[in-house]
Amino acid sequence: MPRTFSRASERRRTRISGKQPGAVSIYGFHAAREALRSPAREIVAVLATEAAAARLEPELSARGLRPILAPVERISARLGPEAVHQGVLVEARPLPPLALEDLPSEGFVLVLDQVTDPHNVGAIVRSAAAFGVDALIATERHSPAASGVLAKAASGGLEHVPIASVVNLARALGELGDMGYFRVGLDSEGESSFSALPLSRPLALVLGAEGKGLRRLTREGCDALARLDLPGPIKSLNVSNACAVALALAASKLGPRALAGAP
Amino acid sequence: MPRTFSRASERRRTRISGKQPGAVSIYGFHAAREALRSPAREIVAVLATEAAAARLEPELSARGLRPILAPVERISARLGPEAVHQGVLVEARPLPPLALEDLPSEGFVLVLDQVTDPHNVGAIVRSAAAFGVDALIATERHSPAASGVLAKAASGGLEHVPIASVVNLARALGELGDMGYFRVGLDSEGESSFSALPLSRPLALVLGAEGKGLRRLTREGCDALARLDLPGPIKSLNVSNACAVALALAASKLGPRALAGAP
Repeated sequence: MPRTFSRASERRRTRISGKQPGAVSIYGFHAAREALRSPAREIVAVLATEAAAARLEPELSARGLRPILAPVERISARLGPEAVHQGVLVEARPLPPLALEDLPSEGFVLVLDQVTDPHNVGAIVRSAAAFGVDALIATERHSPAASGVLAKAASGGLEHVPIASVVNLARALGELGDMGYFRVGLDSEGESSFSALPLSRPLALVLGAEGKGLRRLTREGCDALARLDLPGPIKSLNVSNACAVALALAASKLGPRALAGAP
Repeated sequence: MPRTFSRASERRRTRISGKQPGAVSIYGFHAAREALRSPAREIVAVLATEAAAARLEPELSARGLRPILAPVERISARLGPEAVHQGVLVEARPLPPLALEDLPSEGFVLVLDQVTDPHNVGAIVRSAAAFGVDALIATERHSPAASGVLAKAASGGLEHVPIASVVNLARALGELGDMGYFRVGLDSEGESSFSALPLSRPLALVLGAEGKGLRRLTREGCDALARLDLPGPIKSLNVSNACAVALALAASKLGPRALAGAP
């Protein structure tokens, strides 16, 4: 009963919090390879086609892992017909969650206020990893599971950007402020232009869900609300695209983090 | 037989070329509203819930249109369970395709080399509209339909960015070169840093599909191949995120187009 298995595992899935101990599914070549390369990632099992197993041989043998060889159809049956698994499924433990107090003192972090679409959050995690973001902070509720579709879209980014999952985002923003973080909320109605803002470390970039935007308490927890300069007739971007633009601008202003500031 | 209807209309869907005369489906509040506002968009029918019809009343009455009122379930039955239609479905004629010779002489255009995912292409069209791109050029084959999922993700952007659909992309790049366009291909292995490139109008930004990248003849048709500066451990972005970052950088360098250069 592969479909039943798949649905049950969806119900048992671990949220972005990583609080539940169950295994999560990581599929797709890049996501699987980065998971296998990540020392922090405890692997439970690897299901792979012969071709995928051959491509992942360096990573598998470095960890002393033997994959369960399976035809494409069997992996698809486990994951459902929509999953673009590219012949590999890694079952692994969720990564250990990050505590806010463990953030680097000179960090560059991303805060998500109830962004729920796993494709978007996955693309955001990937961009965060590409632009050297130190951590992602999200709410325990209204955040998608750090596995499956999100992990695939993150393309390995999950292994590089630790996630702090918080109950109360407004309180978390308060703690970031106490740590000296400059908190910038991205808001299409924001009074400042994001590109004109002076930015320095430690920096927290805060993003809301499409349509809903930042919640009132989230906005109140920011030091500045800034908009992207959009000269064309459409005045908003897909949330992951907006995030990428802001990350690129911020990363170019911040430069790399001094090693002394590492956690 | 609503499911049968939906599947048949999928088969009859119009590609990005807009060559086939059949009606296309545009759903979701922003996409539907921009379609209704667009003088170039011929509307065949509007199916809407009472609530959505009330929100769209200004646009509907400006065009003298009467929506067919329908419960959410009936719209979902037409579109399939995955479509996030927000209570509105506009059936419309495809927009007239653009010819390359009609591009503005001082334009800023986007060229897609077989980017196939409709969510990604939709987000790209949205960003293109937000950053004032004049046109999008894509291949007739291996491009998703300019309707449905793509139109929803474009969030109205389709009404603002005319699409030129070409049979041979290498030849189209040649024509752009003849028109004086500087053709920059985005390539993670590119020898130049995109942010360091001197950019001026007319400019064509060329993007390939994720994984595959730019095809050889596409690369050879570019004046420069440039990479985004990604300081983090993951060295590539989701294609729509990469596009947004490049568009933001380019738009800030180009500034708005002088009206004299308008088509």
